[in-house]
Amino acid sequence: MDRRRYEDIGVGDTSAFSKTVTEADIFAFCGIAGDFNPIHVDEAFAGHSRWQGRIAHGMLVASLVTRTLSALAGEGAVHVSQEVSFESPVRIGDTITVVSRVTEKIEDKRRVMVSSVWTNQDGTAVIRGRGEVLVPRERQGREV
Amino acid sequence: MDRRRYEDIGVGDTSAFSKTVTEADIFAFCGIAGDFNPIHVDEAFAGHSRWQGRIAHGMLVASLVTRTLSALAGEGAVHVSQEVSFESPVRIGDTITVVSRVTEKIEDKRRVMVSSVWTNQDGTAVIRGRGEVLVPRERQGREV
Repeated sequence: MDRRRYEDIGVGDTSAFSKTVTEADIFAFCGIAGDFNPIHVDEAFAGHSRWQGRIAHGMLVASLVTRTLSALAGEGAVHVSQEVSFESPVRIGDTITVVSRVTEKIEDKRRVMVSSVWTNQDGTAVIRGRGEVLVPRERQGREV
Repeated sequence: MDRRRYEDIGVGDTSAFSKTVTEADIFAFCGIAGDFNPIHVDEAFAGHSRWQGRIAHGMLVASLVTRTLSALAGEGAVHVSQEVSFESPVRIGDTITVVSRVTEKIEDKRRVMVSSVWTNQDGTAVIRGRGEVLVPRERQGREV
């Protein structure tokens, strides 16, 4: 358990995470989210679309951010809000790197604001976003 | 394929989707997102936390919105942006209902603004959010 204290978090701290987005990810995500849009699951259809092939759900790719939030703010941090803008499609086999950076601390609310950019293996930004996490005080040494 | 036309979308249109969030969802999501925070995967740990048990990743629950966006704007709609605020934890076995509503059409940009509320089986709002989708013009009758 990463017990990073609120006091130890600094503006400018960064965390990165890279992962290849696979076909298995997409089908598992369909089952989780209930979204079987053919652009994600039907290659015969998607091949004739503007994307010329299946693309990952935007929210799937966006979800790669959460690991960096835990790294920056500790595993006990609570995800309060998230904004994402989807800028480019992500295809099966693309390797996505999320780089997150602490931009602000709101001390009296124990909040941390984090800006993130998701890029693919070619350096193209695919998502940009902003998240907010809360770092609770520890209770009895066991609090997450 | 739902070829809903931009012209057919109306402010006030609504779509709902309900799904029980399972333990299998959470572990599959861990593999997709790379986030194995113990609050999601370690019952022995999470049982002593403020939540008194494992909770689902916020972004997992948020992802249930995408199906409603396709229902409202057609399967060819492109998810442009999404904002979510996480208000209450979601536990294994909770049944979440997302209700999404078209709040605005930005005609010259072919955009549709959608407000969504995620509630659990007790009627408690767990997430509130706002999404933006783009409805491209059809091309040659095959465009998604």
